[in-house]
Amino acid sequence: MKNDSYFMELAIKEAEKSLNEGGIPIGAVLVKDGEVISKGHNRLIQNSSVILHAEMDAIEKAGRLNYGDYRKCTLYTTLSPCPMCSGAVILYNIPRVVIGENTTLMGAENLLECNDVEVVVLDDIRCRDLFLKFTCNCSEIWDEELAKVGNTTEVK
Amino acid sequence: MKNDSYFMELAIKEAEKSLNEGGIPIGAVLVKDGEVISKGHNRLIQNSSVILHAEMDAIEKAGRLNYGDYRKCTLYTTLSPCPMCSGAVILYNIPRVVIGENTTLMGAENLLECNDVEVVVLDDIRCRDLFLKFTCNCSEIWDEELAKVGNTTEVK
Repeated sequence: MKNDSYFMELAIKEAEKSLNEGGIPIGAVLVKDGEVISKGHNRLIQNSSVILHAEMDAIEKAGRLNYGDYRKCTLYTTLSPCPMCSGAVILYNIPRVVIGENTTLMGAENLLECNDVEVVVLDDIRCRDLFLKFTCNCSEIWDEELAKVGNTTEVK
Repeated sequence: MKNDSYFMELAIKEAEKSLNEGGIPIGAVLVKDGEVISKGHNRLIQNSSVILHAEMDAIEKAGRLNYGDYRKCTLYTTLSPCPMCSGAVILYNIPRVVIGENTTLMGAENLLECNDVEVVVLDDIRCRDLFLKFTCNCSEIWDEELAKVGNTTEVK
């Protein structure tokens, strides 16, 4: 059955792709009317980027949708979205975001909620375990990323 | 003298580049310690993108800076920044944003200010005139972009 757990599994597969590429294991999928229209994963390390978070990658890969299309979308992401990705969700009026987990890092969920975005946190052990595996083996990559953003991805 | 008006002139030149490419005339430059470290312009039309706003293009082109570098930066943009670009500024702790104008469109300036970002609006006639020239000649491109975001780029 294509429920939130099913689509999160696809986002996790994207996160695993990033891990296998030597990147940060965060994945995202954009779903419209119950069908996946794009998949993305964090490419900061792979592309030497600062904007290609998983959510941004998925939103970009979906192409230039119109307002009505975005309004039918749910964004699935394995980790709580940062202010930039949350801002993209608000800009394009994506009405629903499903988050794998927010214990590794808390993003700008309050900003999403204040802007009428439905936020669902699955607290998915698969997402936490994957990230834990990464931080145990590649802690320097994650530490560098956290230091870059001043150790916070929340908004006031 | 390298003051805000000087750097805004460089951002305007970037906006003009986009216009000459058939794109939306919004430009940005990132300045660190009084020196330009990157320039960017809106590439939505040129790259069939939804994330390459001028500010995102400039931030991406600056490469993977560290926290201390970002803290010395000012982002100059010809038009008030949207929630996505404002989110990127907050994520990377860029402390100052100088905006050409916000009459064509009001962005997420309140979000920046709530997150301790200094916001300066120059109300620069050069920025307004350039955009007016664009909307007079290519109104369908801008109308499509506004419709895509539901006619608002503010946050609650």
